[in-house]
Parts: sequence; structure tokens; C-alpha cells
Amino acid sequence: MNKIDLRSDTATKPTPGMRAAMANAEVGDDVFGEDPTINKLQERVAELFGKEAGLLVPSGTMSNQICVKAHTQPGDELLCETTCHIYTWEAGGPAVLSGVSCRTLDGDYGILDLAQLEGKIRPANDHYVRTRLVCLENTHNRGGGRVYPIEKIEAISQWAVANGLARHLDGARIWNAIIASGISGKTWASHFDTLSVCFSKGMGTPIGSMLLGSKEFVAKSKRIRKLFGGGMRQAGIIAAAAIYALDNNFHRLEEDHKNAQILVEAINATPGLKLEYPKVETNLVWFEVSDSLGGGKVAFEKLKEQGVWVSQMGPNTLRACTHLDISRDQVIHTAKVLRSLAPKPVPVSA
Amino acid sequence: MNKIDLRSDTATKPTPGMRAAMANAEVGDDVFGEDPTINKLQERVAELFGKEAGLLVPSGTMSNQICVKAHTQPGDELLCETTCHIYTWEAGGPAVLSGVSCRTLDGDYGILDLAQLEGKIRPANDHYVRTRLVCLENTHNRGGGRVYPIEKIEAISQWAVANGLARHLDGARIWNAIIASGISGKTWASHFDTLSVCFSKGMGTPIGSMLLGSKEFVAKSKRIRKLFGGGMRQAGIIAAAAIYALDNNFHRLEEDHKNAQILVEAINATPGLKLEYPKVETNLVWFEVSDSLGGGKVAFEKLKEQGVWVSQMGPNTLRACTHLDISRDQVIHTAKVLRSLAPKPVPVSA
Amino acid sequence: MNKIDLRSDTATKPTPGMRAAMANAEVGDDVFGEDPTINKLQERVAELFGKEAGLLVPSGTMSNQICVKAHTQPGDELLCETTCHIYTWEAGGPAVLSGVSCRTLDGDYGILDLAQLEGKIRPANDHYVRTRLVCLENTHNRGGGRVYPIEKIEAISQWAVANGLARHLDGARIWNAIIASGISGKTWASHFDTLSVCFSKGMGTPIGSMLLGSKEFVAKSKRIRKLFGGGMRQAGIIAAAAIYALDNNFHRLEEDHKNAQILVEAINATPGLKLEYPKVETNLVWFEVSDSLGGGKVAFEKLKEQGVWVSQMGPNTLRACTHLDISRDQVIHTAKVLRSLAPKPVPVSA
Amino acid sequence: MNKIDLRSDTATKPTPGMRAAMANAEVGDDVFGEDPTINKLQERVAELFGKEAGLLVPSGTMSNQICVKAHTQPGDELLCETTCHIYTWEAGGPAVLSGVSCRTLDGDYGILDLAQLEGKIRPANDHYVRTRLVCLENTHNRGGGRVYPIEKIEAISQWAVANGLARHLDGARIWNAIIASGISGKTWASHFDTLSVCFSKGMGTPIGSMLLGSKEFVAKSKRIRKLFGGGMRQAGIIAAAAIYALDNNFHRLEEDHKNAQILVEAINATPGLKLEYPKVETNLVWFEVSDSLGGGKVAFEKLKEQGVWVSQMGPNTLRACTHLDISRDQVIHTAKVLRSLAPKPVPVSA
Repeated sequence: MNKIDLRSDTATKPTPGMRAAMANAEVGDDVFGEDPTINKLQERVAELFGKEAGLLVPSGTMSNQICVKAHTQPGDELLCETTCHIYTWEAGGPAVLSGVSCRTLDGDYGILDLAQLEGKIRPANDHYVRTRLVCLENTHNRGGGRVYPIEKIEAISQWAVANGLARHLDGARIWNAIIASGISGKTWASHFDTLSVCFSKGMGTPIGSMLLGSKEFVAKSKRIRKLFGGGMRQAGIIAAAAIYALDNNFHRLEEDHKNAQILVEAINATPGLKLEYPKVETNLVWFEVSDSLGGGKVAFEKLKEQGVWVSQMGPNTLRACTHLDISRDQVIHTAKVLRSLAPKPVPVSA
Repeated sequence: MNKIDLRSDTATKPTPGMRAAMANAEVGDDVFGEDPTINKLQERVAELFGKEAGLLVPSGTMSNQICVKAHTQPGDELLCETTCHIYTWEAGGPAVLSGVSCRTLDGDYGILDLAQLEGKIRPANDHYVRTRLVCLENTHNRGGGRVYPIEKIEAISQWAVANGLARHLDGARIWNAIIASGISGKTWASHFDTLSVCFSKGMGTPIGSMLLGSKEFVAKSKRIRKLFGGGMRQAGIIAAAAIYALDNNFHRLEEDHKNAQILVEAINATPGLKLEYPKVETNLVWFEVSDSLGGGKVAFEKLKEQGVWVSQMGPNTLRACTHLDISRDQVIHTAKVLRSLAPKPVPVSA
Repeated sequence: MNKIDLRSDTATKPTPGMRAAMANAEVGDDVFGEDPTINKLQERVAELFGKEAGLLVPSGTMSNQICVKAHTQPGDELLCETTCHIYTWEAGGPAVLSGVSCRTLDGDYGILDLAQLEGKIRPANDHYVRTRLVCLENTHNRGGGRVYPIEKIEAISQWAVANGLARHLDGARIWNAIIASGISGKTWASHFDTLSVCFSKGMGTPIGSMLLGSKEFVAKSKRIRKLFGGGMRQAGIIAAAAIYALDNNFHRLEEDHKNAQILVEAINATPGLKLEYPKVETNLVWFEVSDSLGGGKVAFEKLKEQGVWVSQMGPNTLRACTHLDISRDQVIHTAKVLRSLAPKPVPVSA
Repeated sequence: MNKIDLRSDTATKPTPGMRAAMANAEVGDDVFGEDPTINKLQERVAELFGKEAGLLVPSGTMSNQICVKAHTQPGDELLCETTCHIYTWEAGGPAVLSGVSCRTLDGDYGILDLAQLEGKIRPANDHYVRTRLVCLENTHNRGGGRVYPIEKIEAISQWAVANGLARHLDGARIWNAIIASGISGKTWASHFDTLSVCFSKGMGTPIGSMLLGSKEFVAKSKRIRKLFGGGMRQAGIIAAAAIYALDNNFHRLEEDHKNAQILVEAINATPGLKLEYPKVETNLVWFEVSDSLGGGKVAFEKLKEQGVWVSQMGPNTLRACTHLDISRDQVIHTAKVLRSLAPKPVPVSA
């Protein structure tokens, strides 16, 4: 049986078309700013999100951590949701790389409401950190791939500006948010000073993320990229894949979202399985496996035996992720396997 | 009118007896380990808490931050209550000085229950910080000076040991916890690898805190003390004050606790004032001033006009702190002033 | 006129063969350790240098800085040559990323002698940093691309082991050292615990460096790579280029070295030009331009006007670097242009 | 025999007069800025050195490291002499606490000449650290307690200003420089933005250093002092000792310098002993013990047997330090003991 790899949308592999684009990319030394393909990509993505400039980096983690460092001084604090990528999945980067504390707030499946942030800015006092930055994530991975309600972002953004805080968006999956909401990249980005976007998740490139902001911010970030070891030479190869993805893989994310709904149905129909966030909006399907079904580990193994690879994210928690390399048929098969996790009801004898 | 300074027990001034002890202290160069008074104090306090060794440092903040650094590596995480001193009032030290992330949990007036900690240890995974340390605070300042229920500490401590976590106690006011609970320093400390104690709060010395732990831990800490600039020379002067405090100011903390109850009564009897934590157990009285009374700022100013200085800790929050330099009469006067904050009821006409 | 780009061997662009290899690479998600091409490359390079394991990273800077971090604790010190890449060209990484001090020693064109290191290990004392690591660079870029005399490395290595110091080699251009000396990668590497090698310089790949060491060290490094944002997904694309380079671009470095000698001759024959290190051994030609010829800036511009791009590295210092994309004819042309920098001697009238 | 402790001027113990001043000091809570004795001292010392403000801290190390942090950002570089206290004896603070690299230059017994600094500012380039700060030390401990030639300081200072660098003086023993040179504190300080001075060395207080600079700089420093754990409460006790020292111990440093000359004569007259810096100018006498006399360890022990304690600073290097607690008679005795280290010449028979 072929492996159906739903562990993450990072698992996507470059398609033949993308490979051809990479093989033919015009390149130069980007440390000197001379790679034409990178320059083209940076301009295009900056334009797409209405920012002055962009900077290609090897990973979403580097993109976020450069932004955190560029926005802050050691001894500053950022406000974020407890389960966000920057705080949870980036190896403690804010503290190690920037000396920055995180003040975490528990969101509603990852989504913060302004009311939670109000009153959280530390007063000016030598005992306190300086509150400097708000970081949001859209879509919010750990919240079930939720699209951030735009009005919540607007409210938080206005409050942040009014209080002198910088605003960063971890937009690793902003592509999915754009497709799912119909709200443009420019609109989403208009509420933030900086954002990170990632090409190696649903967009299907092998490597590459980008940070976006003002020219001044990007110049500062370039310096930090060098410090972190993210300066690459002829990375036009990578940029070419991202350009290809913008042309070919962006709008098809809708298919991934539709495919996710097939899994949603299956989970809802299976006693012992339960969605974490009930209204799956994009391509991430987080669900719980009850102890009556043996919990996460047992389900994980049973799925694997039938060729379905998901991620185990907690004792009872699994995540399935639809993406470019997952066909509708594979999703239908997966749905069937999911339903089979529950024991067949014993027929009542006549 | 004389100022009644209830802002903090850090405001205590050395008494004539303590000054005499300081003036007569035998001293030596502590960087060479040759100050006899410091050595005596370190041994005495270590003995009091059942630890192998102690190290005198200039402040409670330094004591805590040295311990955090000595217990961890950059990229580690500590678990603590959201309002604890280490996370909130030490200028972001864990991140800046040690590259350590804080995972904060909202306690019940500062007190954590084991159930809140369970499941919070990050799995071994390159994306995650390594959970390494649990920090508790006793008495918990921001929780209304609560004494940590010993059974909660026992449970957390056993769980920490079972999971390979180090355990640190911020015992800046452990003296108050000992007096209020009747539980010995040795018993409290037996549940922790290291602790900080402070002599410049209720104990009344001008300067000085101490960290306690194994000989090996203290040797490591001494190195960090030098790095942080906490190595002092003839600090026997300071140690002499602490020895005096142990002999003279420790057991009298009971008076401060009794005095606090006088304030408690007054607050409970005054419409518009409300204790944060209803059962004040030690010397810290946190209370709310309703907007109907004009909120914290107005009450702060009215109290000040009548010679009563408290700390404003939030828009509606004040803290009064009883201590060595506050007499029973001053507390009675304060209680009267507190009661006067509420408007007199208009007598009903006959 | 076509640009002859001698600024750096980082300027090399992937050849058609290399591009084809990249386009056809088998890939997987390397964050899960599942990219077969990366795994193949890591094993091959580890084998080539006699180490247990390797780790692909985006840049030589990241490779070095991960190694510095993995070998040390904050408050440690490394010993290195004053002009080495780790100290000079990596944005202060040891201090910022690892809290590590550098004790710099002035070498003979980058080469240290054991006698300079002896006596430089700090005694055990709380005032001092702990000396932990020796870093050497081979070939030494700023020393004129010198190959480290193997007997000097042996002596330093033995001394380091005897004194409990770790040993790291910045082998960004170890390929050139192997070719120029005839000494194998295994032999060079046997004197070090860890080394960095780079594929994007003379080896001609667009991106990619690798660190090498024990399995345990590489596991530790993988965690730091994630922290620094160097975790990449389907980086088999990059690894394929490196495999191609090992097969096709490694042994041809000899041509670059021969080409460099043509520049050496031209410089030696030109009054006002002078080699920094007189015996150019590899592909880096550092030379001084006398003020009589207008200094570095003027020469830089004159060369550029004639299509020859070099790097200006100081007021009077230029560097020309031969590499894969520079043909013998281009070198001969460059030599001619270099000679033309000196004014023609005025013929003596009869 | 009484111990003659020449190990360091940090060994000085408070005199009865100083102890009385401490015992009677008026105090307040300095974290609130309310300690009148501290305020008085800070104003007095600021006035003495012509700076706007001062900040009392527990140690010279903290004073220097706060200044380094306040002047820089992570990724910056400071220029200093190789053997200076900030780089050598402060546990690697610049790297650990501030992420700052040190570019060290070998001085002439600690003294740098402008020519050595020129050309050492890194060009603006993402690969390089940013050169931000020059740190000098006066008197220079490891250079034999040399007084910095004022004209060298002037030249360096002007160059630093012209190049946008900040200037910090480690003036732990500036008191000795003032007395030895006749140049006022104001004049010395006029060439620096900030300086540290120390009261616990020749000035004889048990604890305490001060940093001096603009009001804005001191406000910034106060925040860092809290972070480092240097905030102290009723430290007026300590400040009173420093005020006493200014009144009573400052001008008498001349005696220490004269006493040092007695040791100088003895060393010069003893075969096998040799001054490091031949012209001892203040109270620090660094000298070498030849192997013929058994080297440093043997001499150290022989001196100790006769009650003379010096510091061993290297295999052949000893340091003797005259100070407040060393009388002329003790120095004369020490000189005699030093002379006795050399074997008596065998009398030639008649």
C-alpha cells in the first residue's frame, strides 16, 4: 500500500514543473544582493502583501526569530497565544536568541480577543520587562488551522499601535487564510508591521520562507540573517520554486481545504473520535481519540498499518494535514480508515 | 504627621542594635572566602534550612537569577506561576541572563496545584525547549502573601523529582511562612534543591539575600555571582545585620501578621474596599478600591494626605505591608484612615 | 566585455550538470530525517573525513556557530587567530549566540604556532572565563589562502587534547587544502573533534555547508540548527548539488590553484603591486596596491573598468579569487590588466 | 608574626571611624531613590568627576558590565587592552551579559597608543560586528598600576568621538591616578562618556563602586542594575563608608605610593627579582621571580612563612599591593624579607 503522508504540509515534494523551474533559474550571489530570481521573488511577494521589501530565509523559524530580534531589545517582552509556533515550536528562540520574554495568553483555539491583551502592557518600571511586540499566527496551527477573524486582528492591531507596540504576523500558512477567507494578502498584512510567510508548507516548495516589512526593517533583518547563518549564495534556485508555487500552487489550496472536510465528516461520524476545533476551516485537522479506542498511540499505529500517516501531538491528540501531494482518492481512503477505528456495532439479534 | 510607610517591608531600616552589630562585625575579603562573619552566617542559615551551603548576595533578584542560571542551559524552560517574582518583577532575567523561557500557569492567588503542572513537560523534540526547573514562591507576594499549602508543595516536589526537574523556592518571605504555619525552614526546604531567602524585607536588614543548596551548586553559583557583579569584599558588615535579624527580628514577624489582621478588619468593614485574597495569612494586604470610591489612585492620594503610604499595584489595586518599623498604634491609625475612605452614611431624618 | 568575477569563489554558479542533478534529486522531509539524498551526502562526507556523522546546514557561518555553541557554555572562551572567519566575519556570533569570548592571537598569515597558545589557558578561577575550544581555519582565507602546515596542527591538537580543550576546524576551503597538500580529508580531520566544510565556494554549489563530528555531537547540533532556523525540508535538492560537486568539482580545484599562479606572476612583475603572503598556495590572491598607484580604491575601479571584478578588503588591499567559473583565458586577461596598472616606463631618449 | 596582607588593596578593612560613620548613616529605600546618604554620595562623586549623575552598585565588575551593556547592542564590539579587567577578570561578562565581542590590543604595560586603535573600526558590513565602544583602565592594574599618560587618553578620546565611538573608563583605581599625577578627577573624566570608580580598594570601604555619566545614561543603567540584581535597599550604610573614605582616605593614597617605592628598591636590589614595569607609579608592584630563585611559587611560600602575603599571578609573577592597612613598618619588614629571597653572597676569604 502506498503511504498517505498526512503528517504535515511540510512533506510536500517539488513537482516536475517546479523542478524544471529550479533547474533553469537565473542565479547570482545573494550575499551581494545579486541574485535576480531572489530579487524578483522578494519584490513580488512584498507587492502581494503591500510591504516595501522582503527577505528570503531558509525557514519559517528563522523568519520569525529574525523579526522578533529586529523588533526588540534584550529585556523586552512579546505578547502571544500560548500555543503559537513562535513560543512553542521554535526551541525557545525568543529567550535564547533575543533575550526576550514571552507573555502567553490562552486563546480560543489559538485566537486572542483584544480584551485578553488589554491591561497586559507592563507599566514603565525598572522591575518590569518592556512590552514591545504582539505576535499573532494566521492560520493558527495548534488552534486547528483556524483563520483569524479579521475584526479581531483589526482591534488588536489598532490597540497595539495606540500603545506603541510593534505587530508581527506569523503567516506561515497565510496562504490558506487568504484562500479560505477571500481576504487579500494586502488586507491581512495591513494590520502588521512585519510578517513571515512560508513556501515550504502548502505551497509545496522544498525550502524557503520570507519576512516582509519596511525597507529599513529588512535591512536590519539582513544583518541578523547573516548572524544566524541564513545568508545563502545562489538561492535563486529556491526562489524559482517559490515563484512557481505562486503561479501554480496557491489557488489550488482550496482543494486541500475541501479534502479536509472529507476527513471532518469521517471524524464526526466515528464514535470515539472528536474534532478539537469543530469547524475546520483550512487544511489542518486536529482530533482527539478517546481512551475507549485506545487513545492516540493505538490509533496512530492502526492508521499507519493501513498506510495512513498522521502526527501524534499528545496522548490523545492526532493531526492530519491535507496538502499538494494528497489526492482526493487518498483522502477518501483515509476517511474510510478513520471510520474503521470504531468497532462495528454488534447487530441486535432478531 | 509622621509618615506611616506601608509600601513594602523592604522599607525597614536597621535598628540601633543592628547598627551596633554591623559596626562591630569582624570582616575579611569574601572574594577570597575569608570573611568570618559571612562564613558564620552562611553556615547558620544553611543549617536552618538543612542545606549544605549558602551564598550571600546583594539582592533577592540576584539570588533567584543565579539559581535559574545554575540550574539551566540556554534553551531550557522553567515552570512558574504567572504572577511570581522571578517572572514578573526581575526585569526579564530568565530570558536575558540565562536564555531560559518561562511557562507560566495561573495559580489560585499564586498557588499552583499539581494538576496544573502535569502534562506541561515538553516531550523530547528538537522543536521544543527542555523543561528543566519548577520555581515556586512562598509566601507568594502577588497572591496576597499566601503561605503555600505544604501538601501542594509535597505533591509538586515529588512529581518534579520523578520527572527529573530541578526545584527552586523563592523564599524571600519564607520567614513569614515559617512563623505563620509553624512549619520549620528545614521542612519547607526539604522539598527543594535550592532556595533563596532575603534578609532585607521583614527581617529588617539594610541589604542582603542568600541562596542555599548543595556544596556543588553553591560553588557553581559563586562563579555566576562574580559574573553578575555580586562579589563583595568585606560584606561581613551586611552579614552581621542578618545574624542580628535571625536573633532578634525573626520571631517577632508574628506581630506583623497580627497587625495585618487589623487592616483586614478595616477593609472588610469599609464599603468599596475589598481584599483580593480574603484570608490574609501574613503581612501583605492586597485590596481593591472600587470605582465608586474613585479607584486606586484617589485612595492612594487620600491615604497619603493622612500620612499613610501604601503601594499602588494596579488601577484599582493597593497593597499595604506591615513590618518591623510599623507599630500597632500606626496600624490602628491606618485602619481608621482606611475606614474613612467610604463616605459616612447620611443619617435618616426622623 | 564580459565580467570576470574574481570577488569570491562563492560567486560560482551551478553548471548544467549540477542543475540536472538537483532537478532529479530524490527528496523527503529532513526535519524528520527522511531525505534520502541528504542522508547519502551526510554519510559520504562523514566517511570522507573519518567522522561518525554530518549535518547539512544553509551556510558556513551557521556550521561554525553551531559547533561553537555545541562545544561551549556561556562564559567559556575559545582560542583563535585574530583574522579568522569565526571571529571576524560571522557578525560576532560567538558572543551573541553563545555568550563565548574569543581570545585572539596574531598568526603568521593566519597560521598559529603552538608556542603562541601555550600559557593561554585561563587558570580555574571565578574571575576568568573557562578556556574550552581551539578553532583553526584551513585554508586560512585572510592569511592569503594558506594551507595550515600539518605539523603545526598536530602539535596544537595534541596540546589541546592534553589540556582538555575541544578542537574545531573551519574547513570552508578544506577542499583546496586537500588538493594543494595531497593530505587526505581524513588526516586533516583526525586532528579535530569537529569540522565545517562548505560546498558553495570552490566546489560550486549554490547553497550548503556541513558540520561533522561524533553522532552525539551531531544530535546536539541538530537541535541548535533548529534553534537558529537552519532546519530545511526537502533540502535533498541542495544535497544533490553537493554530491555532484564531490564527483565533478573537487579534483579540478588544482586548475584554480594553477590559475592563481598566473596572477601571482603578474603581481610580482608589476611595480606598486605586492602580494601579502608571498607564496600563494591555493586560489586566494591577496595583494597590496601602493599609494603610488593610487591605492586599493583606484586599482579596484580601473580593474572593474576592464571587466575584472576583485574584492577590496582594505584601503590598499585587494583580493582576487580563482574558481570554477573563471577560465584560464580570463585569468590570462586579468594578468594583463593587472600589469597595466603600473605606468609604462618612459623610454630613455637616445 | 602578624600577617602582612599585600595581596590586594581590596583587603582593606573599615576603620573605627568608618564603622562609626556607617553605624550612624541616615538611610532609606534606594530602590525608590529615597536613601539620603546614597543620594548625597552620588551627587558628590558625580560633581568630583564632572558628570551629571552617579549610581552606587555592589562591585566594580557590576559597574563596568552595566556600562558595557548600556553603551551597546548585542553584536557590537568594544576595543580594549588585552590584559584589562573588563576583558580578563570579569568572567567573560561582555559576551555573556551583553553579546558583545572584545577586540583586544596588546598595550605597553597596559597603555594603548592611538596608532594601535586606528584602522580597527570595522567597516559597515553585515559580516562584521559594529565597533561601538573604547574601554580604557586607569590605573592599569595588570600593567603594573601605571597611570595612563593623559596625552594618550586625549588622543584616543578625540579619535573615538570623531568616529562615533563611546568611551568608558574603568577607574577602579582612578583615585591613585589622581594622586600620582596631580591631574583632577574632572580632567580625567572629561575624556570619557562614562566611568566606574571603586571605593573598596585603596579607599578602604567594605563594599561599593559607582558608575558615572549623563542623567540619561544613569537612568538606563539603573534598569540594568535591577536586572543584574544590584538593586539594594538601605545601602546608605555603604554610601556612608564611601563618604568617609572621600574625606579621610583619598589623599593618604600618597603614602601607599611611597610605600610601594620601598618595595621597588628592595626588588631592584635583589638578584633574581625584577620589576615587570620598571617605573612603579602607584601602589601595585608586579615583579618576576627568576627560576634561579625557584620561581613564583617558591617565593610566594617563603614570603608567606615570614608573614608576607602577596598574590601569585603567573608561574614567575607576584604582585604586592600597598594600601590603607599596611604601615610603613610593615613595608620595611617586607622589603627585608624580599631581599632575603636571594642567597647571601659568600664572603670572599682574605
